[in-house]
Amino acid sequence: MSTISHIKEDALIQKLTEGITTFPEVLVGIGDDCAVIEKTENEHTLLKTDTVVENIHFTPQEDPERVGWKAAARVVSDFASMGGKPEALMVTIILPPDTEQDWIQKVYNGLKTVARKFGFSIVGGETSSTAIGSPKIISISGTGTVESHNLTLRSGGKPSDLIYVTGTLGGSIRGKHLDFTPRIKEGLWLARHIKPTAMMDLSDGVAKDLPRLCKSSSCGFEIFKSRIPLSHNCTADQALRDGEDYELLFTIPKASKQELETAWKKYFPDLQLTQIGHLMEKTPEVVAEEASAIHAPPETDPQQMNQLEGGWDHFQKD
Amino acid sequence: MSTISHIKEDALIQKLTEGITTFPEVLVGIGDDCAVIEKTENEHTLLKTDTVVENIHFTPQEDPERVGWKAAARVVSDFASMGGKPEALMVTIILPPDTEQDWIQKVYNGLKTVARKFGFSIVGGETSSTAIGSPKIISISGTGTVESHNLTLRSGGKPSDLIYVTGTLGGSIRGKHLDFTPRIKEGLWLARHIKPTAMMDLSDGVAKDLPRLCKSSSCGFEIFKSRIPLSHNCTADQALRDGEDYELLFTIPKASKQELETAWKKYFPDLQLTQIGHLMEKTPEVVAEEASAIHAPPETDPQQMNQLEGGWDHFQKD
Repeated sequence: MSTISHIKEDALIQKLTEGITTFPEVLVGIGDDCAVIEKTENEHTLLKTDTVVENIHFTPQEDPERVGWKAAARVVSDFASMGGKPEALMVTIILPPDTEQDWIQKVYNGLKTVARKFGFSIVGGETSSTAIGSPKIISISGTGTVESHNLTLRSGGKPSDLIYVTGTLGGSIRGKHLDFTPRIKEGLWLARHIKPTAMMDLSDGVAKDLPRLCKSSSCGFEIFKSRIPLSHNCTADQALRDGEDYELLFTIPKASKQELETAWKKYFPDLQLTQIGHLMEKTPEVVAEEASAIHAPPETDPQQMNQLEGGWDHFQKD
Repeated sequence: MSTISHIKEDALIQKLTEGITTFPEVLVGIGDDCAVIEKTENEHTLLKTDTVVENIHFTPQEDPERVGWKAAARVVSDFASMGGKPEALMVTIILPPDTEQDWIQKVYNGLKTVARKFGFSIVGGETSSTAIGSPKIISISGTGTVESHNLTLRSGGKPSDLIYVTGTLGGSIRGKHLDFTPRIKEGLWLARHIKPTAMMDLSDGVAKDLPRLCKSSSCGFEIFKSRIPLSHNCTADQALRDGEDYELLFTIPKASKQELETAWKKYFPDLQLTQIGHLMEKTPEVVAEEASAIHAPPETDPQQMNQLEGGWDHFQKD
């Protein structure tokens, strides 16, 4: 019989959730950064859960306050990618019984710092014990809100739309993964003023996340290695594959290019914005505009893309 | 330095969450069965997260479909205890890489069965890997809804209110903990027609849960061992301490006794309902009406009560 190490995470979730029915109040279910539940005419509820596991998302040596920051900020980043903001989060911490009280207290300090900075409430949660020797686990879940007309999904991209990323990519393991800033301000501004056709946050790397956006939007894509904005001392391959940048990846119609780039410089002068490529037709005539073009038809399963290009999979180290 | 095995779960959570501020839309934060977020004038959102861990909440030998049932039904039970119902749940599963795909598929089958039976949507979640040899973990979180006028908290109990439990208690480890029925129907009916002054579900046993309700309501209590409704082959001590019954524990004004008991027999003829005692003043003159009366002044911390009476604590085996 197959174990879960023989299947990629996306494929596993697809298999497990087959045949799940959802009720009409669920506007978006499985497959986007957050689920979306109808609340009122003008506002929707966003739902998200996300987990960090010791030795996968943080090491035992790392400052627990920064671990707490990361655990909550990852969820905030998902709300940002929908054009929303966090509202009320719950904290589940699962620990071996020999964990120091001081460690968990510091994790909570990190969580509270994120809550203060991004204006949400911590409304509950639990602590549960696990076996001695098991990794520490922090799982954050809860709600965000988004104004109905700001809701931005992964699925609205159209062929010829331009693909942008915020910030620089790669090498987050050297520190950024523990103290990144979720792009709440930028996500909200984009949703209000530019109306991206599709948006998500970069948690697993462009090489893995862009195919997901394209699959949702039924598009292909072409991106250019030479344009990838590199973090200090990173190669383009690292920038595409390392993951945990928590920058925004979004698409806009060609016609909005000038407006976006001019306004961005004005409102976010300190945050790089880069057009890395464009969406394409489903069965594209791929033209490599630059020597290092990377492209994939939309039939490419994100998993195959992952095999081609790397990126982080929770059950396999590439 | 102290490890978490040196502190009881309630005390730990109280310590960790000190100084947490919540925003006005949070009607109820930490400390009840669910958090309550204002939604519209007539309806509120309930928020809950709950986790089951292998070797604590289920054994490796147990049928994974029943494990899935338990994981989701525990959360449904918390919505029931507020007079509400489940809406949209997310599933986080954390597994060692040698877990069989078949195991997780069956867990999902159990989850889907609960979803169909209690009418909620599964809207997302994730799978994450943990180290080989670590316990399997299933964490369920998400939203329920409650009509504003049905919302029933732990905190509204008054001295002289009568204390009731549904069903029979004890011995759930012999099987009930994996296939109990969350009391959604009963909770909703009680909230609509009887208006309990306080209500919660029995997850850790009367010996541990009743002091929590009393602490929230600033009351003492007196209960009678001889009245505790016993599951087959259980002693009163087991009924008070075993936990995982997922029955409702609630209080009503004395004046509602007749109305409740008559209507209950009509609407729920197959489910036992038992008055096990009553709430008391903060500094009660305790009168043992029966030889086996158990009582505690409200100053008794739930932890001290736990030391007196047992009940399940997630970091200690009593």
